[in-house]
Amino acid sequence: MSSLPDAVEALIEELTRLPGIGRKTAQRLAFFLLKYKGEAPRRLAQVLEDIATGITFCPRCSNLSENDQLCKICENPRRTESVICVVETPTDVIAIERTGAFNGSYHVLGGSINPLEGIGPEDLSIDQLLSRIDEGNVEELILANNATLDGDTTALYLARLIQPRGVKVTRLARGIPMGGDLEYSDEHTISRALQARTTLDG
Amino acid sequence: MSSLPDAVEALIEELTRLPGIGRKTAQRLAFFLLKYKGEAPRRLAQVLEDIATGITFCPRCSNLSENDQLCKICENPRRTESVICVVETPTDVIAIERTGAFNGSYHVLGGSINPLEGIGPEDLSIDQLLSRIDEGNVEELILANNATLDGDTTALYLARLIQPRGVKVTRLARGIPMGGDLEYSDEHTISRALQARTTLDG
Repeated sequence: MSSLPDAVEALIEELTRLPGIGRKTAQRLAFFLLKYKGEAPRRLAQVLEDIATGITFCPRCSNLSENDQLCKICENPRRTESVICVVETPTDVIAIERTGAFNGSYHVLGGSINPLEGIGPEDLSIDQLLSRIDEGNVEELILANNATLDGDTTALYLARLIQPRGVKVTRLARGIPMGGDLEYSDEHTISRALQARTTLDG
Repeated sequence: MSSLPDAVEALIEELTRLPGIGRKTAQRLAFFLLKYKGEAPRRLAQVLEDIATGITFCPRCSNLSENDQLCKICENPRRTESVICVVETPTDVIAIERTGAFNGSYHVLGGSINPLEGIGPEDLSIDQLLSRIDEGNVEELILANNATLDGDTTALYLARLIQPRGVKVTRLARGIPMGGDLEYSDEHTISRALQARTTLDG
């Protein structure tokens, strides 16, 4: 039997459900929250309640948004709608936004096609993507699906579906990552980088 | 400007306040909670509310308890009240309970004396400890304060205060930890282990 009050045990158990948090870390977090009795746990409880009730998906691009409104990117008039970057998850949007190098809009698929896990095209937000394309303003679709088997499958599926509609479809380049050592790159990456080699302007 | 809904930003910010959780981990946790929309964040919010309102200190030993009642150890009739183990924090209680080697009761000081940080004896639950001793049933007080400068100072202070009341006062043994290599032990631990060497019965 634990020597802890049941409420503390319940908190520790709930925290261990989070990814990467084991019993020891959960205990440390719980005791940290207990130290600032009342205030810290209540503030965290409040923001959790807020996301439990208020977070929805953007009706246009399926990115995260609040209260069924357009997401921050879709409602930004300075982002061009003619280039759509297709990604798997909202975290991918954050990763690309961090570069500051993209000024178009996004479309979040919500995953990738994976027959083994029973995820087919109908489980992704592909219909919404087609509607956006049918509106006629889209010039280019950048497929930023992950460089995995599932990501490639999904990208290929989308390319075959959308290219006939007269939209330019591109895929993020593959190659040696910036600062990457050839010595530590795997053979697939290197052979891909060889195939896709570019001319140097002298 | 972040591309995330404000509620998600607020959650990430709140999570980064926790010890050992940086922006990246907080983001991963937030997205995990978002994936199980509604249910997971709400359950965590609930247990946080519970500890924000329900967790109090045991009126007897200052360990964590619920709703101003005695803690689980103090209310357990099978724990002897004649031996009190004095510790700094409730986490120390958990550490000692894990050994299964102690059947007495505890007294949680709530810290250690540290003049630099302005923590004096009056900030610790020493008065309650004296009342428990004055009840007359205590035979031994085991000082399990940490083996730090502050812990030693506090232990010495308590020993001087309580020994005159006719109670046996002991301190946890110091030495080489189990499985510890001499090579990797610091010189203070080794010299302490030398001083406190014990006879081997052949």
